[in-house]
Amino acid sequence: MQAKLSDLGMRQRPSDITRLMTFALEQPNMLSLAAGFTDNESLPIEDVREIVEEIADSGAMGKTTLQYGANKGRDRLRSLLAKRIRSFDTIDESHLDEKNLFISNGSQQALYLAIQTLCDPGDFVLVEQPTYFVFLEILQGFGVNALAMPMREDGEIDLAGLERLLSQFESEGNLDKVKALYLVSYFSNPSGHCVSEKVKSDIGSLLSRQKEPIAVIEDAAYRELYYENPFDSRSGLALESFNHLPVLYTSTLTKPYASGLKVGYSYCSDTNWLNSMLNVKGQQDFGTANFAQAIVEHALASGRFDAHLNSLRGLYKSKMLTLHESLGESLKSLGWKWEEPAGGLYLWLKSPNGMRTDGESPFHSSCIENGVFYVPGNLCFPGNEDRSRIRLSFGSLNLEDIREAALRFVAAAASMTDSAIA
Amino acid sequence: MQAKLSDLGMRQRPSDITRLMTFALEQPNMLSLAAGFTDNESLPIEDVREIVEEIADSGAMGKTTLQYGANKGRDRLRSLLAKRIRSFDTIDESHLDEKNLFISNGSQQALYLAIQTLCDPGDFVLVEQPTYFVFLEILQGFGVNALAMPMREDGEIDLAGLERLLSQFESEGNLDKVKALYLVSYFSNPSGHCVSEKVKSDIGSLLSRQKEPIAVIEDAAYRELYYENPFDSRSGLALESFNHLPVLYTSTLTKPYASGLKVGYSYCSDTNWLNSMLNVKGQQDFGTANFAQAIVEHALASGRFDAHLNSLRGLYKSKMLTLHESLGESLKSLGWKWEEPAGGLYLWLKSPNGMRTDGESPFHSSCIENGVFYVPGNLCFPGNEDRSRIRLSFGSLNLEDIREAALRFVAAAASMTDSAIA
Repeated sequence: MQAKLSDLGMRQRPSDITRLMTFALEQPNMLSLAAGFTDNESLPIEDVREIVEEIADSGAMGKTTLQYGANKGRDRLRSLLAKRIRSFDTIDESHLDEKNLFISNGSQQALYLAIQTLCDPGDFVLVEQPTYFVFLEILQGFGVNALAMPMREDGEIDLAGLERLLSQFESEGNLDKVKALYLVSYFSNPSGHCVSEKVKSDIGSLLSRQKEPIAVIEDAAYRELYYENPFDSRSGLALESFNHLPVLYTSTLTKPYASGLKVGYSYCSDTNWLNSMLNVKGQQDFGTANFAQAIVEHALASGRFDAHLNSLRGLYKSKMLTLHESLGESLKSLGWKWEEPAGGLYLWLKSPNGMRTDGESPFHSSCIENGVFYVPGNLCFPGNEDRSRIRLSFGSLNLEDIREAALRFVAAAASMTDSAIA
Repeated sequence: MQAKLSDLGMRQRPSDITRLMTFALEQPNMLSLAAGFTDNESLPIEDVREIVEEIADSGAMGKTTLQYGANKGRDRLRSLLAKRIRSFDTIDESHLDEKNLFISNGSQQALYLAIQTLCDPGDFVLVEQPTYFVFLEILQGFGVNALAMPMREDGEIDLAGLERLLSQFESEGNLDKVKALYLVSYFSNPSGHCVSEKVKSDIGSLLSRQKEPIAVIEDAAYRELYYENPFDSRSGLALESFNHLPVLYTSTLTKPYASGLKVGYSYCSDTNWLNSMLNVKGQQDFGTANFAQAIVEHALASGRFDAHLNSLRGLYKSKMLTLHESLGESLKSLGWKWEEPAGGLYLWLKSPNGMRTDGESPFHSSCIENGVFYVPGNLCFPGNEDRSRIRLSFGSLNLEDIREAALRFVAAAASMTDSAIA
């Protein structure tokens, strides 16, 4: 008989980010404002070449870089990163110990491990609207419900609304199913929004008052990708109201450096949760590629990382401004709205009159026909509620292509309005 | 209130391999014959330095190596690997298409994805006795039962016994819960055993006759680490009896080259299963570090990979012989038994008179006291049945340390016999 694995159930669901990335990589003539790729022309090629030379010359290339490493990650790298967080957040050493810090395959793996270890199918995780869409896919993959938090007009979480939501779960006896609150706290993917320290602190207080433990997953992947100044809000790790909450703070070294190295890092305040994630990581890969870790460790220690990051800030600012200005008045006059972000890789657009922008919409088709590609914003909402949003990434295209992509986008937008009028 | 995540349930279980590796890495004076690390002194330092130079000089360093890549892995690398499998197995291109091949974070991640996508809690996966112990941990982590296959004296699967086992499941109406058969088919970790082509082919026939689809996961991680000649058995991908079975063939490029790069590869004959694994991989990390892939791709294409591997074969043979001979007559005279393998990184010992060797045994303590560390063989059996086995790895120690570790091991063994006599 012929065996077919037709019953892979929910695990067969196609991944949107994978599909988008694959599509973008396969269409050379398409200008993609979709995938969150980083700038191609500024990749630190000479840095990496020099670092590999230096590691080889120092005699440290063999046993300590080309051999397996520890599951948790390289000691010195973990120590450098703990110091870095302490410095951002003004935390002293006794309150942030590197033993609770681990390295992963990008911060993506840490998000995956966090949900895999915390949640059972049917549980709930609180998310912002909008939120990082791959995180929504992770939840869906584990059969976990994304629970949309009520939001204020200014993009912050509506705390009174959140309190009512939690009370409702409590009164229904389901509060123990709410396992975590996920916060994209700096220059959010997709919206560019930053969570103020006041709101963050109030979230900590609200969660600490609950009768069941609710963990906080703070995704700070874009924290260092500000254009001019860091956003003035410490992470949850530094806030008193978070002291008794299980907190996972996660970020990446390679998005703001060389994404092909794929090294993320996380600090977890709860030892049970940390060990549980490390146990699963031990089964998934027992440790992130040691060589990639060694390169970023060397980049951090030698100051190359910060020098590169500093130059990237100006670059991304100019890319953001190029997209912003190229869309400019022509798009605004068609009724589109967006704000200028202060960091990150994205513009977050709202279409006029709620015009649909999802993957099945006429506008999406029109963009494809015009040779430009975007992430439909509905993917960033649990339940796809809002179909009038678009995420545009200016990370990977060069300035000329950004201008051309913007022209194509505006042309698509104009054609829709024409046909709407016609 | 103070929130504690005390209810992480089965996900909290400590991982044995992680614990062993961590322990080995933290004990500088201990000579570890435990962790399956590779040789330190032969790591291809100059290769990697040259490759990075060449990639940088060729102008291919930026966009195509330091940037994110495709979730499935680099096209050229996948094409080279498909060609490699076709050449080992004498398969023509029409029967083994690179579109079914993907790259992972070591072959470990592929094993993890395979089980995660195939199985639900309570399902069964058939395993050899002994089998790769981290695979047993993966099963346990997903609540999947490892179902021990009856084995012959010569280390091959007892096919008549396996047929009876499957009939029993069928008659109990549980055959649909048996999702896969896991085979470590070349120079097995831990036993060094190779599965003959005849047995493999008969397994294919037996599984093809079943009323429910049972996938085959063929773990060929050590296939290329033979000492003198490849083991004369094609993989399941080449066998007619496997034609209608879902097959995952998985191996690694970095165990036999530079384990710190962590690049594995797999061919999956079933498109549903393949897509399901890729979807989950998209959520876990959306693609293995592009830079690490680029290095091994360059090593393969330039012939450096094969040149290095060839030199490793002689090296591991001499390391195996050194351990084998250093344990030698003194250990055999104490009643210990083992066979000389023809490839791989392990000796697989049997203690005299069933003396216990597990982590809680007096012998294990005696070894620790004597400064030598091993993997208790019971970890390699589902249910830990056999407590008289030991896996010794000669991968990472140099020849001098292997001799010293063997002396310590023999001393521990002798002391046990003395105390047994006393």
